[in-house]
Amino acid sequence: MICAAIFGFGNIGSGVLDVIENNQHEIRKTLPEGLYVKYILDIRDFSGTPYADRVVSDIDIILNDPEIKVVCETMGGKEPAFTFSRKALEKGISVCTSNKELVEAYGPQLLKIAKENGCSYLFEASVGGGIPLIAPLNNCLRQDRILYIAGILNGTTNYILDRMESEGVDYEPVLKDAMNLGYAERNPEADIGGHDTGRKISILSSLMTGKWVRYENMYVEGISKITQRDFQYASAHGYSVRLLGVSRRDGEALSVMTAPFLLPQVHPLHAARGVFNAVLVNGNKVDNLLFSGRGAGKLPTGSAVVSDMITAATDPTSSHHINWSDEVVIPEPQDECENRFFVKVSAGSREKAEQVFNGQIDEIWSLEEIPDEFAFTTVAMTESDFAKKAAMIEMIGRIRIF
Amino acid sequence: MICAAIFGFGNIGSGVLDVIENNQHEIRKTLPEGLYVKYILDIRDFSGTPYADRVVSDIDIILNDPEIKVVCETMGGKEPAFTFSRKALEKGISVCTSNKELVEAYGPQLLKIAKENGCSYLFEASVGGGIPLIAPLNNCLRQDRILYIAGILNGTTNYILDRMESEGVDYEPVLKDAMNLGYAERNPEADIGGHDTGRKISILSSLMTGKWVRYENMYVEGISKITQRDFQYASAHGYSVRLLGVSRRDGEALSVMTAPFLLPQVHPLHAARGVFNAVLVNGNKVDNLLFSGRGAGKLPTGSAVVSDMITAATDPTSSHHINWSDEVVIPEPQDECENRFFVKVSAGSREKAEQVFNGQIDEIWSLEEIPDEFAFTTVAMTESDFAKKAAMIEMIGRIRIF
Repeated sequence: MICAAIFGFGNIGSGVLDVIENNQHEIRKTLPEGLYVKYILDIRDFSGTPYADRVVSDIDIILNDPEIKVVCETMGGKEPAFTFSRKALEKGISVCTSNKELVEAYGPQLLKIAKENGCSYLFEASVGGGIPLIAPLNNCLRQDRILYIAGILNGTTNYILDRMESEGVDYEPVLKDAMNLGYAERNPEADIGGHDTGRKISILSSLMTGKWVRYENMYVEGISKITQRDFQYASAHGYSVRLLGVSRRDGEALSVMTAPFLLPQVHPLHAARGVFNAVLVNGNKVDNLLFSGRGAGKLPTGSAVVSDMITAATDPTSSHHINWSDEVVIPEPQDECENRFFVKVSAGSREKAEQVFNGQIDEIWSLEEIPDEFAFTTVAMTESDFAKKAAMIEMIGRIRIF
Repeated sequence: MICAAIFGFGNIGSGVLDVIENNQHEIRKTLPEGLYVKYILDIRDFSGTPYADRVVSDIDIILNDPEIKVVCETMGGKEPAFTFSRKALEKGISVCTSNKELVEAYGPQLLKIAKENGCSYLFEASVGGGIPLIAPLNNCLRQDRILYIAGILNGTTNYILDRMESEGVDYEPVLKDAMNLGYAERNPEADIGGHDTGRKISILSSLMTGKWVRYENMYVEGISKITQRDFQYASAHGYSVRLLGVSRRDGEALSVMTAPFLLPQVHPLHAARGVFNAVLVNGNKVDNLLFSGRGAGKLPTGSAVVSDMITAATDPTSSHHINWSDEVVIPEPQDECENRFFVKVSAGSREKAEQVFNGQIDEIWSLEEIPDEFAFTTVAMTESDFAKKAAMIEMIGRIRIF
């Protein structure tokens, strides 16, 4: 029997227990001796529940039990998750996590501590929920030079945008629904502000480059300014609106950003509807790959965590080859990145807009049913050039085009 | 320097060499000492080419060189590929292959020989070309009970069907184009007859069940009867036509088949256009996952082979945990499988068809522009019930509905 512990018995932690207890038959095909959750670390009171006798509030009980070979950290946030993870790794106990905030902020350090102590730090569930993505990147694609990763990485915002698209409803009521359904947190800023997506594309960019791409150095824009009118324009021209994390390498230069984009409806990423996530990976030999699945939810995410726990139990050195150094790489300044833009101004500002963007307007997107606005798309231009020109007109809104 | 050999220097074998030589920088992140192709085994004459001095026609030169740690078998076909693979494994040399015919026919034996000799038999490239699929199934999803796999697994037929759909052209001229473009073999029967897809879904079914699902026990139907009219009907009702390999578990029962299906245009599998492949995997905890990418081509497939070569070089025991026994599992008889059908009869046979399928007609799909036919869909019915009734009417054609 391989003994494990769960740090943090919330939504995902309980999913991990569900997968381990109910899929023991599957797990024993790889670990014939079985995988058993001996402890659950949580400060809340679980008395009266079936697992009450396994809940402890003192981490030392777990760290001092030589039977414990692997823990899952599903606490979320930086502290005490970081300290607890570090302490476990220093004891030679492998740590598997779904905590993207911690992985983004301490990934290289925790990988190093794991290596020094003969155990593993694994984080499949930190990006894309249940989608096998981190392991394929680290193990199946290491012969390729990854040039490009773009993804729908946040289920909450994708649910909101998908409903705005398919039902023609506006942002505010859908956000309220998402909160009532439990898809969005009570404080939904991490999702709708793009921060969750930003942390995830930061982790993927780090694995792509082998260096440390910090979230704090990345341009991040959320979805709160997206309106039903944007979907009207988009739909009339074969597009949708999706929040994307995008990371691109060109030689040694790296550009990374998180923002809403107009995405062609026929684009494979658009097949990820509702709370699904989808990630496009481009390698120099393998070309385009698409990975899609449930990006959140206790069971899919729990399944990914348990996958890592089995890997760590089978081979405690499995994270040692992960190519992620603590050398910070600063992406290209956002100002210098080139994008195409969709722009809306008031109908009265048409002449001025055409003057300012002279030669850079690609298509007129104005709609008869929105007579008070003039809408157009631009050719590719640098962000700074666009910003300068946008400041000269009274812009109602703008969205980048993927 | 880790020394390797390539068995069979055709399209994929040359792709393997391309990836190894041109992506050496990427490969050295995992194998700092580098990976070097010391021999190429082929009976053809490559004198005058840059790699002429590495080509040998005698396998014993390779097998007796203690430097060789891993070979790739990209010969195709059963013999001499089987004998050569067995001999290499018996010498403790890992074998990585793209040869689906061999994997389907000898997978369990070769895995066993590899285990007995402390080396690995790996076959990522045998299904889905460059898509990481076999390794995710074997390593990332082993905590899940896989219930269902369905996929577009053959690029040639997908290219043909996609062009029939998007350009309104008929089967024969597109097949000719595919042959001229090198997408289809001079003898295209393995592709268009569904045999290639059948072998691939057989391999995936074996990995899903841990037993041996033989291609010879599976129902296989090709695409040669699909007409432009079928696409007219499909398109008018929001469907497309795609060749799918489908495998489903229900308790201990397994149903597997390869056939053209009407696939909803909004289905995620439909996002795989042209020569792309896409595979849907459903696990009891992770729910639906989609993997998509280039299902053929020398570089994507070569990339997948090299991925396995790096894995085998890093850990020669890596295939030992693959869950695939030689116990043959016979799928449910096709007669007992339930499907929904799209059926075409001559306009004059409408009354007879309505009589025979009384109570089992779901929707009338007849089109004004095809006045000489009566078309309808059925509710779910067993294959034997359908066949019995289809024999009572003069059916022009029928396609299953996904």
